[in-house]
Amino acid sequence: MSTKEFFKVSSLESVLTHLHNFPRTEFETIPIEESLGRILAKDVISDIDIPDFNRSTMDGYAVRARSTFGASERSPALFNVTGTIEMGEPARISVKAGEAVKIPTGGMLPDGADSVVMLEHAELLDEHTIEVYKSAFPLQHVIEIGEDLCKEECILPWGQPIRPQEMGVLAALGKSDVPVFKKPVVAIISTGDEIVDIRDIPSLGQLRDVNAYTLSGQVKKAGGVPTCLGIVRDNFDELFHMCEQALSHADIVLVSGGSSVGARDFTMEAINALPRSEILVHGISISPGKPTIIARIGKKAFFGLPGHVTSAMIVFMKTVQPLIERMGGLSEKYIEKKREATAILSRNIASVQGRTDFVRVNLVHDKGRLVAHPLLGKSGLIRTMVKADGLIEIDINSEGLDKGSVVTVELF
Amino acid sequence: MSTKEFFKVSSLESVLTHLHNFPRTEFETIPIEESLGRILAKDVISDIDIPDFNRSTMDGYAVRARSTFGASERSPALFNVTGTIEMGEPARISVKAGEAVKIPTGGMLPDGADSVVMLEHAELLDEHTIEVYKSAFPLQHVIEIGEDLCKEECILPWGQPIRPQEMGVLAALGKSDVPVFKKPVVAIISTGDEIVDIRDIPSLGQLRDVNAYTLSGQVKKAGGVPTCLGIVRDNFDELFHMCEQALSHADIVLVSGGSSVGARDFTMEAINALPRSEILVHGISISPGKPTIIARIGKKAFFGLPGHVTSAMIVFMKTVQPLIERMGGLSEKYIEKKREATAILSRNIASVQGRTDFVRVNLVHDKGRLVAHPLLGKSGLIRTMVKADGLIEIDINSEGLDKGSVVTVELF
Repeated sequence: MSTKEFFKVSSLESVLTHLHNFPRTEFETIPIEESLGRILAKDVISDIDIPDFNRSTMDGYAVRARSTFGASERSPALFNVTGTIEMGEPARISVKAGEAVKIPTGGMLPDGADSVVMLEHAELLDEHTIEVYKSAFPLQHVIEIGEDLCKEECILPWGQPIRPQEMGVLAALGKSDVPVFKKPVVAIISTGDEIVDIRDIPSLGQLRDVNAYTLSGQVKKAGGVPTCLGIVRDNFDELFHMCEQALSHADIVLVSGGSSVGARDFTMEAINALPRSEILVHGISISPGKPTIIARIGKKAFFGLPGHVTSAMIVFMKTVQPLIERMGGLSEKYIEKKREATAILSRNIASVQGRTDFVRVNLVHDKGRLVAHPLLGKSGLIRTMVKADGLIEIDINSEGLDKGSVVTVELF
Repeated sequence: MSTKEFFKVSSLESVLTHLHNFPRTEFETIPIEESLGRILAKDVISDIDIPDFNRSTMDGYAVRARSTFGASERSPALFNVTGTIEMGEPARISVKAGEAVKIPTGGMLPDGADSVVMLEHAELLDEHTIEVYKSAFPLQHVIEIGEDLCKEECILPWGQPIRPQEMGVLAALGKSDVPVFKKPVVAIISTGDEIVDIRDIPSLGQLRDVNAYTLSGQVKKAGGVPTCLGIVRDNFDELFHMCEQALSHADIVLVSGGSSVGARDFTMEAINALPRSEILVHGISISPGKPTIIARIGKKAFFGLPGHVTSAMIVFMKTVQPLIERMGGLSEKYIEKKREATAILSRNIASVQGRTDFVRVNLVHDKGRLVAHPLLGKSGLIRTMVKADGLIEIDINSEGLDKGSVVTVELF
């Protein structure tokens, strides 16, 4: 069968639809200390009110707000100081009209008090008497019971990525063990008779294995666990056995390289020889990245990525990354919420209708504006990826973008 | 001494100047596999050209471009096919005028050839003859020697963060051991008589230790290594000894909590009692986050952060994070290059002149625009941080921002 026949290319949109049908990973429980960046696997419901007492946010005096009403510099309100609240202790005193109790930041408001007068707004006349010069409003400088987190409320939904602030919520609720989705395991196989291990010295005609490293970095960044299986020759048997090995432990298999016709054919053969395999995509209408193969093998996903480093990285960003995120439990709104910047395009870029182009750009602040400089260059070069800060997309129906256009840059 | 006397507040700008004077961490060498997100400690100079041979980027025929000049559908150019290039092998053949050699993607161009004709643009007449229908230009579908990375060129400068593409460059150059800056070690001490360990059940008037977890998440995110030393009471001796212990192993010490006057006083006392200590900042003209203490203790940095969770997080972002990045070797242009988004403000926000306000916002895509909704709320609440996607800054000289203003959002 000729290669050309395979190339009924799919749009990126239809490729993404295929990628919705893989199962999420299982749960595991990890210590909160290791939870940064992980994805919550269960809703977090508060079993307590936080705070569970009315809490002062200032150093001052707990009073009834009513007792201060009308107070001014000319006619201050007088209060009897009847005690002091100790930090971390229940308030064992109650406050009546005209009474004040000294309270530290974080202290528990005593019964009867509904407001805090700051130290700076009170004057100590003697050991037991203060003057207040300003009306205090009810709940002034007070965090009420349940004002931060409320009992039985769903505080964090499953699918939420854990940032430092979510770690804080988990800590506040005493959730020292956190249920998260397991990280998807992604096996990476490099192919090509010309590819050598990075610890070897290439002979003439050979190159070191770059893709295994760019891809494993991308897998980690996307929230997966990369396992690099090494380099296989352009040979059906070697590739088939390596794929079997990869499928025995990984959720996703990436075969990179094999941009040559022969290599692509071996990849197709290997997929077809694997049990319960189904080719989903052979060719995507994007540039760079067209010669991409995607298959389902049982419940697992298989990608034949282009060999050119830039093509492989861009196909990864557009297909493998959202799959890792979805398999790893990330909820849809975060998958869509990409890190983006808005910039002005520095020059015209031509494009071909019928395919989506991804152009690497370098971002430069210039006179208060962010300017995107396209980095054109062959997709076999890693140099342009190193110089680039992100990608812009040129729509499948567009013939290009004009200099001065406002573009959205997906940041690396 | 009263607390008020201390509050000669510093502007954020002058605080950042103080933070330039701490030394960078030392170097260490790590395997490339662990290098993602680390900061390069030495320039990476290429010791080879990449590729070190002229490389085909297509499956096709290596030819002399001149031999194709003038070729068209009507008058094709004829070529004798004199051999095949094997992947990963030196080209042991040379190409003369009117000759073609079959070459795979990634193959080495033979002597005499300067161009590649794609398979699709050639027709095989018999085993040894092809017709070419289109002129090929010199270097068509060829990556030249050194076109990607050039011998003796500085490919990556020290101070550069390692992304997947930088891992690729290191792989291409065979740098399997990577010199990076050590991650700054940041000790975190929580203070407060009302604070209990997250594994304990708080009694009335107590709260669990939230700041140790938000801060350790922030330290990790910034590229540091957090070590949480636990909770100390509001007590000079306990705090002093914990600080001594922290300084024995950490580059930076964070004491969080102590927003009450008494606690702040203990922190000041502890700093003053430590050898070679110097208070740099006591109070920053930002909101939230004013009651911040920064000191130098020998070569180490010491922060007394506010106890309110949001205040502590914002002060961290604005002061501790750039310090960790700088100590950890990140070059200035990356420290300044924050993750930002541009959005439209959904409502008016008032501000006070003479201080820089940081307002948490939630970002929502609305009719193709990104809208920033301010999340107002007491700085003791973690809820608003969980709802927030980032921060906007209101300048020290501004009285506020109007609804509809274009704002820059620093993303969490």
